[in-house]
Amino acid sequence: MRIFYEPSLSPEQTTIHLNQDDSKHAIKVLRLKNGDEVLLTDGKGYFYESVISDSNPKKCLLEIVKVEKQEKNQSYSVHIAIAPTKNMDRIEYFVEKAAEFGIDQITFFTSKNSERKVLKVDRIERILVSAIKQSKKAYLPIISELQPFEACLKNIQESERFIAYVPENPEHHFFKELPKSTESIIFVGPEGGFTPEEIELAKSYNVKPVSLGNSRLRTETAGIASCQIIHLKNL
Amino acid sequence: MRIFYEPSLSPEQTTIHLNQDDSKHAIKVLRLKNGDEVLLTDGKGYFYESVISDSNPKKCLLEIVKVEKQEKNQSYSVHIAIAPTKNMDRIEYFVEKAAEFGIDQITFFTSKNSERKVLKVDRIERILVSAIKQSKKAYLPIISELQPFEACLKNIQESERFIAYVPENPEHHFFKELPKSTESIIFVGPEGGFTPEEIELAKSYNVKPVSLGNSRLRTETAGIASCQIIHLKNL
Repeated sequence: MRIFYEPSLSPEQTTIHLNQDDSKHAIKVLRLKNGDEVLLTDGKGYFYESVISDSNPKKCLLEIVKVEKQEKNQSYSVHIAIAPTKNMDRIEYFVEKAAEFGIDQITFFTSKNSERKVLKVDRIERILVSAIKQSKKAYLPIISELQPFEACLKNIQESERFIAYVPENPEHHFFKELPKSTESIIFVGPEGGFTPEEIELAKSYNVKPVSLGNSRLRTETAGIASCQIIHLKNL
Repeated sequence: MRIFYEPSLSPEQTTIHLNQDDSKHAIKVLRLKNGDEVLLTDGKGYFYESVISDSNPKKCLLEIVKVEKQEKNQSYSVHIAIAPTKNMDRIEYFVEKAAEFGIDQITFFTSKNSERKVLKVDRIERILVSAIKQSKKAYLPIISELQPFEACLKNIQESERFIAYVPENPEHHFFKELPKSTESIIFVGPEGGFTPEEIELAKSYNVKPVSLGNSRLRTETAGIASCQIIHLKNL
């Protein structure tokens, strides 16, 4: 069954109008009719089973018949802070892959060597919406607007904090340093890497430099690698 | 220093002509001159330090001054057999990422649900050549032409054999099943997955079905995930 994403939904609602794009898609493309079932999610953990009561292709009306919370069965969370790459395809690729592995939050930041200083978050959100629809998840990962590195450091909520850094000591591999069952964040730098000053700044916020292995990884690969490492650590 | 890839080189040689493309690149683009140093690799484990003795932009002559073998310090090998995706970009992306993490061999196969039955291996090879140049490696991963699934099964050299399969029993995660320090191969299926018959066929060749986790991964993501899992297991 096709899932529609309606971020405005809340569990108390008994009816909802699909937005114009989704109304058109449901009625004109999928050719749904009055009485047909539609599944909705608010991206905040709820699924809404509903039935079409007015198949208006501009403003399709649905009656919600059942609301169900999707339990998060994870004992850990995945938060990756990443400097968007110069090439937009590469950062979109990271987002797509992270959504496949499963991610709770993506924070975008700019640092000294960032080549990209502007980011259209709406394109990123569309990739995430499409991913939760495909994988039938009720949680949309949280994403932030692009912000300066230090602002990110100041806002860290997680107790376990890491920064991917071509290391002085390659023994400190992220996979070994990350404890199980924790809320963690890892920072992944831009193509040019972090400066030594930025690493010192991170350390002053209790962020620990870690290695992602002997190979030099591109930014988006380091992001994907970090995401998978967190999941594997929590197997 | 820029590295040139010359697969015809062998350690006994004392001189070599760069091919036409590389000659042009070295002399016209990089503006190298007689006496300038150039590093070459044969992709089979050797680096060749050389000096330009005739800066001919069509047929640049080099004298080899030192040959050095790059030791493989891996106690394990990474071999991924994968069904190319319908969308060529996706399989190229897998190849690029696998080369970043490090891979020894990629075998391409077709199975029942394969949507792609033709594959231009030369494009794949160009990606791999570019990757070993960037990461300064002397080993080019071995790649095969596209071949039928069963032919691949018959040709397996590795003792540890796996197939990524949305499992009956998700406890058999590849990360847990793979022993350390072994030569292994893992098969990753096409978009439509393997058929139950193919899984049975694989089992008859002592290939073990394993899970890559709870999320449903795209083909190229499963390939990247498998590659990283092998490296992490051998940390």
